[in-house]
Amino acid sequence: MNTHTPPSGVISLLTDFGTSDPFVGVMKGVMLRRDPSLRFVDLSHSIPPQAVASAAFWLDKVFSYLPQGSVHLVVVDPEVGSARAALAAYAAGHYFVAPDNGVLAKVLKRDPSCTLVALDVDTVRRLAGADGSDAACVVGGVSTTFHGRDVFAPAAALLAGRTPLSALGEVVARWVEGDESVVTRTPGRIVGQVAVVDHFGNLISDIELSPDEGARVRAVTCQGQRVPWGRTYSDAPTGAAIALLDSWGCVEVAVAGGSAAARFSAGVGDAIEVLTDD
Amino acid sequence: MNTHTPPSGVISLLTDFGTSDPFVGVMKGVMLRRDPSLRFVDLSHSIPPQAVASAAFWLDKVFSYLPQGSVHLVVVDPEVGSARAALAAYAAGHYFVAPDNGVLAKVLKRDPSCTLVALDVDTVRRLAGADGSDAACVVGGVSTTFHGRDVFAPAAALLAGRTPLSALGEVVARWVEGDESVVTRTPGRIVGQVAVVDHFGNLISDIELSPDEGARVRAVTCQGQRVPWGRTYSDAPTGAAIALLDSWGCVEVAVAGGSAAARFSAGVGDAIEVLTDD
Amino acid sequence: MNTHTPPSGVISLLTDFGTSDPFVGVMKGVMLRRDPSLRFVDLSHSIPPQAVASAAFWLDKVFSYLPQGSVHLVVVDPEVGSARAALAAYAAGHYFVAPDNGVLAKVLKRDPSCTLVALDVDTVRRLAGADGSDAACVVGGVSTTFHGRDVFAPAAALLAGRTPLSALGEVVARWVEGDESVVTRTPGRIVGQVAVVDHFGNLISDIELSPDEGARVRAVTCQGQRVPWGRTYSDAPTGAAIALLDSWGCVEVAVAGGSAAARFSAGVGDAIEVLTDD
Repeated sequence: MNTHTPPSGVISLLTDFGTSDPFVGVMKGVMLRRDPSLRFVDLSHSIPPQAVASAAFWLDKVFSYLPQGSVHLVVVDPEVGSARAALAAYAAGHYFVAPDNGVLAKVLKRDPSCTLVALDVDTVRRLAGADGSDAACVVGGVSTTFHGRDVFAPAAALLAGRTPLSALGEVVARWVEGDESVVTRTPGRIVGQVAVVDHFGNLISDIELSPDEGARVRAVTCQGQRVPWGRTYSDAPTGAAIALLDSWGCVEVAVAGGSAAARFSAGVGDAIEVLTDD
Repeated sequence: MNTHTPPSGVISLLTDFGTSDPFVGVMKGVMLRRDPSLRFVDLSHSIPPQAVASAAFWLDKVFSYLPQGSVHLVVVDPEVGSARAALAAYAAGHYFVAPDNGVLAKVLKRDPSCTLVALDVDTVRRLAGADGSDAACVVGGVSTTFHGRDVFAPAAALLAGRTPLSALGEVVARWVEGDESVVTRTPGRIVGQVAVVDHFGNLISDIELSPDEGARVRAVTCQGQRVPWGRTYSDAPTGAAIALLDSWGCVEVAVAGGSAAARFSAGVGDAIEVLTDD
Repeated sequence: MNTHTPPSGVISLLTDFGTSDPFVGVMKGVMLRRDPSLRFVDLSHSIPPQAVASAAFWLDKVFSYLPQGSVHLVVVDPEVGSARAALAAYAAGHYFVAPDNGVLAKVLKRDPSCTLVALDVDTVRRLAGADGSDAACVVGGVSTTFHGRDVFAPAAALLAGRTPLSALGEVVARWVEGDESVVTRTPGRIVGQVAVVDHFGNLISDIELSPDEGARVRAVTCQGQRVPWGRTYSDAPTGAAIALLDSWGCVEVAVAGGSAAARFSAGVGDAIEVLTDD
């Protein structure tokens, strides 16, 4: 049996719920009812509705910046209410709770010794005291439309409170794979695509390079236009485009003081080509 | 004298302040100055400006998901600076602080033994140390435009720190009623309206049904169009409309993978009609 | 040597990162790895991209509402990756961490006995355990594009955890001044400009008045139109414009139940003129 890092008491949240409705606050309330000492870190609630791949990308990039033993609660769940499974996992020293739709696939691939269980909804709710003993909270039992509140949040609170993973359901060995990002590498040329567009309009691609590889890049092509390679945003004059190896280890196209998404009319899925000295 | 549930140390916030300005953070700062151990849950700061009815709807639906003894700080306050009263209340095991404009009406109606006081501004500020002893914070005493900072937040911090309700003002027996939602029920037909539109464009109505009542629904009409009744979003093919009993116990019109608000050109106040087997 | 107020354990955050990406959550994660007991208050993450002056305005208005000894982490950093210095400061009983681009200038001017250091990046990262001992977090050392994560957040966590300011770098006596707001005062007339536009469309000017000065205002002019002077928003009928001394001590132009920015087609930098009895 694995020895898991003890929970840190920190729960991160990553959803497509937006923040205009009280959905995220309700999930936090449910978790605080279980354990008033929990602390929360909002990663994002602005994943485009039901964009599982965007959530998978960011989760993989950022989970390790949280304390070891943190629980990551990911609810991007277009199939809520269907027969899709709900997962809890331990991988790379962190805990994860999410629907089984590929959103955890990148993280799980990082750790060959990861452990997964398929959440048993009745067990989770019984252990969390959400099975009727807590009647004020329940509208007809588990809802068919908000498992974030009724299943995933209780499971995350239990994990953060040291309930072992194995108490929440049966161990499973398979999970839904996400859409594989297809990065093709040939001598002198790497082709990938825009994975996410950030708040500044920067185009972050799925092409990951080591610093050594980054040192051998000559230029990047985006929407048929050549973009010079640089080191940081301020290497370009204001208004000029620049490509660089960003803080996530990805090739990124930016416009100094502006939006690359607007400049290049580019978005998620558009091709990014890297020309190298190899 | 009632025995009130002890405060949980959790304060929820529900406002129309948005999050682009530091108004919410300032309220939290004011409360942390009073008690650094307080914990906050943001319910929403995106209530449409001065939409008291939307705030009242959500508060009523969600407060019970927070721990018993939580303080709910609600600031949607179009009449700030006028003679409208400021309220603190205890109802259904929770505490509430809000302007007296109907925003608490639904919650207070739930608990016939609720207790209310009209906040005495000078008393609140004196008890909270915000009356000049804390000079750095005060611009000419109580402002006429930001009672969230100057009155409601101090009152919420006091309640969360075990100051009894009765110390904050005179007990009152009446409050401003909100706009009553008008749901008409005739055999085979219930007519209500859209109460709020959520982040996904789902149309959430003010028609509340029990699961048993939900099982007898045949169809729903929205903007003159018939919408099939289902159990969960994924019962409909992507792009198709579906009506269902949602996780708040309300009749809701949705579009699988899309926006019902856009599809039906519908918004708050538009009629929703439910056809039943009764 | 100054005796500094002990840290409060509260860290406020003020950035132009938006909340759609997980950048803010990553900074919080980095700080919680260092000290799991830290508490955060989000002031705003919606400063317009790279609008140093807006951040400087709000920081100056709001920092004192947080507990004494709080650390204010300000990351509006158009020159990230360039040679611009990174600052940590102690002023007016609070701690500040920010790029040296003028964003702290208003705050530092308040306290003639303020203390500043230029952050030594290697020292900060070594003290914070972010120099490779914490390998999972590091992509090729300090990134050139996200000093919020790699430099400023570790420095803020150190200060909040009682590392003395002087341990983080060399004391400096000069810093980049911000754009001075130019308010001209002649008898009977004060001319300034819109400093920020808030969520409600209120036009908040850089003209600060005492309550006594406010009592001698006759009217305000905005975009060539005369706006009556009042005391609070609800002094005007719904839909009417009103000017007043707001809760920040600034002259503000508002529209009751509406947006002054829309009504006057006005924004940051537009002139505001105050006519007084002086």
